[in-house]
Amino acid sequence: MKLNYSSIRQTLDFLLYDWLAIEQLSAYPRYASHDKDTYSAVLALCERLAAEKFEPFNRLVDTQEPCLDTQHAVPELRLPDCTSQACTAYAESGMLAASHDFDVGGMQLPCVVEMAANSMVSAASIALKAYSMLTAANAGLLMVHGTETQKKVFALPQLQGRFFGTMNLSEPQAGSSLSDITTRAIADGQDHCDDPLGPRYRITGRKMWISAGEHTMGDNIIHLVLAKVPDETGALPPGTGGISLFIVPKYLVSPEGHVSAQRNDIVLAGVNHKLGYRGTTNTLLNYGEAGGAIGYRVGALGAGLHCMFHMMNEARIQVGLGATMLGYAGYLQSLDYARERPQGRPVVAGQHVQKDTRAPQVPIIEHADVKRMLIAQKSYAEGALALQLYCAKLIDVQRTGTPQEADNAKLLLEVLTPIAKSWPSEWCQEGNSLAIQVLGGYGYTRDFPVEQHWRDNRLNMIHEGTHGIQAIDLLGRKVRMQAGQALQLLLSTMRQTITAAQQQPSTQGLAADLEAAIQQLQAATDAAWSRGDALRALSNASHYLKAFGHVTLAWIWLELAVHTHTAKEASATPAFVQGKRDCARYFFAYELPLVQAWLQPVHQQETLLTDIHPQCL
Amino acid sequence: MKLNYSSIRQTLDFLLYDWLAIEQLSAYPRYASHDKDTYSAVLALCERLAAEKFEPFNRLVDTQEPCLDTQHAVPELRLPDCTSQACTAYAESGMLAASHDFDVGGMQLPCVVEMAANSMVSAASIALKAYSMLTAANAGLLMVHGTETQKKVFALPQLQGRFFGTMNLSEPQAGSSLSDITTRAIADGQDHCDDPLGPRYRITGRKMWISAGEHTMGDNIIHLVLAKVPDETGALPPGTGGISLFIVPKYLVSPEGHVSAQRNDIVLAGVNHKLGYRGTTNTLLNYGEAGGAIGYRVGALGAGLHCMFHMMNEARIQVGLGATMLGYAGYLQSLDYARERPQGRPVVAGQHVQKDTRAPQVPIIEHADVKRMLIAQKSYAEGALALQLYCAKLIDVQRTGTPQEADNAKLLLEVLTPIAKSWPSEWCQEGNSLAIQVLGGYGYTRDFPVEQHWRDNRLNMIHEGTHGIQAIDLLGRKVRMQAGQALQLLLSTMRQTITAAQQQPSTQGLAADLEAAIQQLQAATDAAWSRGDALRALSNASHYLKAFGHVTLAWIWLELAVHTHTAKEASATPAFVQGKRDCARYFFAYELPLVQAWLQPVHQQETLLTDIHPQCL
Repeated sequence: MKLNYSSIRQTLDFLLYDWLAIEQLSAYPRYASHDKDTYSAVLALCERLAAEKFEPFNRLVDTQEPCLDTQHAVPELRLPDCTSQACTAYAESGMLAASHDFDVGGMQLPCVVEMAANSMVSAASIALKAYSMLTAANAGLLMVHGTETQKKVFALPQLQGRFFGTMNLSEPQAGSSLSDITTRAIADGQDHCDDPLGPRYRITGRKMWISAGEHTMGDNIIHLVLAKVPDETGALPPGTGGISLFIVPKYLVSPEGHVSAQRNDIVLAGVNHKLGYRGTTNTLLNYGEAGGAIGYRVGALGAGLHCMFHMMNEARIQVGLGATMLGYAGYLQSLDYARERPQGRPVVAGQHVQKDTRAPQVPIIEHADVKRMLIAQKSYAEGALALQLYCAKLIDVQRTGTPQEADNAKLLLEVLTPIAKSWPSEWCQEGNSLAIQVLGGYGYTRDFPVEQHWRDNRLNMIHEGTHGIQAIDLLGRKVRMQAGQALQLLLSTMRQTITAAQQQPSTQGLAADLEAAIQQLQAATDAAWSRGDALRALSNASHYLKAFGHVTLAWIWLELAVHTHTAKEASATPAFVQGKRDCARYFFAYELPLVQAWLQPVHQQETLLTDIHPQCL
Repeated sequence: MKLNYSSIRQTLDFLLYDWLAIEQLSAYPRYASHDKDTYSAVLALCERLAAEKFEPFNRLVDTQEPCLDTQHAVPELRLPDCTSQACTAYAESGMLAASHDFDVGGMQLPCVVEMAANSMVSAASIALKAYSMLTAANAGLLMVHGTETQKKVFALPQLQGRFFGTMNLSEPQAGSSLSDITTRAIADGQDHCDDPLGPRYRITGRKMWISAGEHTMGDNIIHLVLAKVPDETGALPPGTGGISLFIVPKYLVSPEGHVSAQRNDIVLAGVNHKLGYRGTTNTLLNYGEAGGAIGYRVGALGAGLHCMFHMMNEARIQVGLGATMLGYAGYLQSLDYARERPQGRPVVAGQHVQKDTRAPQVPIIEHADVKRMLIAQKSYAEGALALQLYCAKLIDVQRTGTPQEADNAKLLLEVLTPIAKSWPSEWCQEGNSLAIQVLGGYGYTRDFPVEQHWRDNRLNMIHEGTHGIQAIDLLGRKVRMQAGQALQLLLSTMRQTITAAQQQPSTQGLAADLEAAIQQLQAATDAAWSRGDALRALSNASHYLKAFGHVTLAWIWLELAVHTHTAKEASATPAFVQGKRDCARYFFAYELPLVQAWLQPVHQQETLLTDIHPQCL
């Protein structure tokens, strides 16, 4: 059941060239040397990588979980060979440094192209992709916040694929509540500030949920670790303001970049056995059991979260993209199945429910309920992909646009990021469930890939900020920031789409529906905060997030429907264009009405969720 | 993480005695010898069974899938020992024959008590329970449709736990479309009608998705197999009218009940490796590879589906109950976790989103969003359990009530069964997803039981009639049958609840909301059929099913809220009663508004799902 990449490419071409008009990015000096040929070559490269090095091994890494090799003094975690081969191929493609400057070996690609190309690799194997994704994120952070030596010694080898990287935030007792981390960093000697690799500390503590935390690939693993520096009494500063960030390599490295054979004081304390995403090993790491792991501070004391969250918008969009492509993979695979599988006969038009039992069976794609499950998946996956690429282009504009453009892009990103992270995590997983349903009993077996997508995708509502955290971020912070400017900018952007849609008879009705939904959303936002009570307002934040997400995706679908009228890409065939319009029609007829239902308790300032006594649960 | 059975028992006591007033069933002669003590003893028995023989092995049977033992001439499928031990303990409890007559060794228990008692076993291990459930269903069918000899030889040994039973409906090419089965039954010799075990045939064909299809437990496996008898030209009759039902034992049995060492011509052709429900082995069986398996017809020629569907209401309610109890288990386990796990601090009431970071962390049950996830699970699981028991009581009334009572019970059952099957399959699985979310990263690991519930539950939307099939059954048949009488009876039953709810200030608002929802449902039903076109109407059947389900559950919750005012059970503590009222309030505030959204396309007779061309998907 191979992925139909050309179908993804067809949609990517429409989104990138017809809709987002990314060729115009070449107007920015940073991208001046690129053109459509560059971009298409990168897409083709990643399609080949996905098909050859990732997809064929996606089931294998689900079933062959990493095993502990205890033949060494320190037990080592061995991954299936295909993991290293996929990571090597990805590194050799240059994609690890895709968005970085030419002068550090990068391609200076726009983020939107990087994400579009990566989308196919994610669809092929999200779990195999994670190693490279984490490495790129780690290096990306260091390239912004590290010293020149830190960049050279720790970041560049990652961009070249020689080192791997991780992010160490959570601890067993502190997941969503980072202010409660207890990992300590103590200045390592009088001369700790003189180390060329950065202020040197000894790190002790336990870090949980560390993806790619231990393996034997590459020459080293660079851990980025959040920890607190105790005050003179030994107490840890409360809150998140006391958190700093440290580079803690698995093997010590000299300032000249020489990797020592000496292991740092980091012990693999446990391997988590997960429901899905099993190809990405996930670990509990103990730091400093033998006195303290050596770590080098990145950024200022207490600026750890600031450094980490600098990357957070992009990281969250990456998670959303992963969720999206799992949804996309399930959609394409269940679509192939539905075209091939004969079963039953259509109901005959007429008063009674009748079928012509002497007629041959039809492919199940002929049944209305199967069409429903396919168009729902298509609207979730393609809509989410469009949103992720829209956000990725905003990142590009924020980096390279005029100050005014950059400010606007940043504001839009702030308010869209919780949606880009949470919406695909929820709805593309629902899509994966529909893919199972299309395949019926076969979908419930491990002989087909769709059940794995469903399991893999379930992680995405949990990591990089749970759904509940995204909801509080949206209603508690993003729609209120700068006196509501981010929200107003988004709504006015949506209204530009509405204005365009009013010009076309086929989209006028949808335009009116979106306008009504926007007004409901605005009214609910006001109602939530009308008492000026955060506790009350936020108790309905998750329902608000759901509604906000669906309004956003309705807008995306209206955008796409409008742009089908000017599609120039050769791949935009009549059936392709009609499919996009059908999706828009589906989303407005079947999904958008849910907005009002979700907003009702927000609007009515329902207090049940603060009223309930835990004893009554 | 042990299940809190006393919490389930507390709710069962309220539902059985305070709400359904099952003690009144003793007025029927069949149950005259029973009283509350009998019922409570049965519940206690099943609680012990669940805790001792099922729950401790639920993870083991998930990880130790059956293996082929090839040391024998015919390979045998070996299950972990705990499977046989659980089945034996269940048989020894007498529960296999719980609802059967005293004179065949049964307990003559009402179905509602049998289901209530079984609910705890299902919560403990749905996969281990399936062997007994299938055996009881097989025997139950034979006790109704079999000859006296068939009952004695094939059914009673199952009720005693000596034989196991299966149901063989699907084939690799015919799942939902039973009219397309190709398994053949040919009369076995001139004297085939003279066999004391019933008309004797030779069966050839392949049966797919056969749960418990092969194992070495007990003395025999009795397969109930649907097959077609070809006409004189050798052609199979089209449609479902040509389907007959056959008893096909794994080992041949003499009319005196002696189990022969001779195996019937049935070969295990494959074992399905599933996403969940792994403790129930699931097989592909080939019949008649060596010439034809011997089978004895049950019931008349062509009456196979009639016999099978006689048990279908009950079987579908059983599936719903299984889905419900998976939801219940996840609810209780995530509730326990939420009470214990400290994480974060509540938002302080006030204008800004602030937390007191110097205060200690609170158990996560204090957070509004965690309360949301718990009350949602509670409302799904407890509401669904109430619905299943309501339906079970209808089965009792249908069997033992006056003709008028029985007719009404039958009508209500017809229209409620698609909901009882589909609603818990969808919403208690959503509950299982929320349970994972409450546990966060831990919930995503196999160290906790909630991920398994979520995987196990995913089957329930597929087997015993998919969601789509239930939807067509409801909108295409059930709400139209007898000129809409079943629907009208249900709505008038709901309106009795509304009338009662209007008497209490605390439920008046809910009563009005339910009345509004009923009117929307009625209007949508009329709109769907207003053109008298089945093809169009049924294209929106799945959304109609969703809406109908939520209206039904809102009615159930209103019923329960009303009955909290007269609860007499000692277990109905103030917190318990308040918890039920909170659930009702939750369901009406957060869930019921979805009804209007789902009905909108039904109401508007949206034709998208028939309009879409497969090429555009």
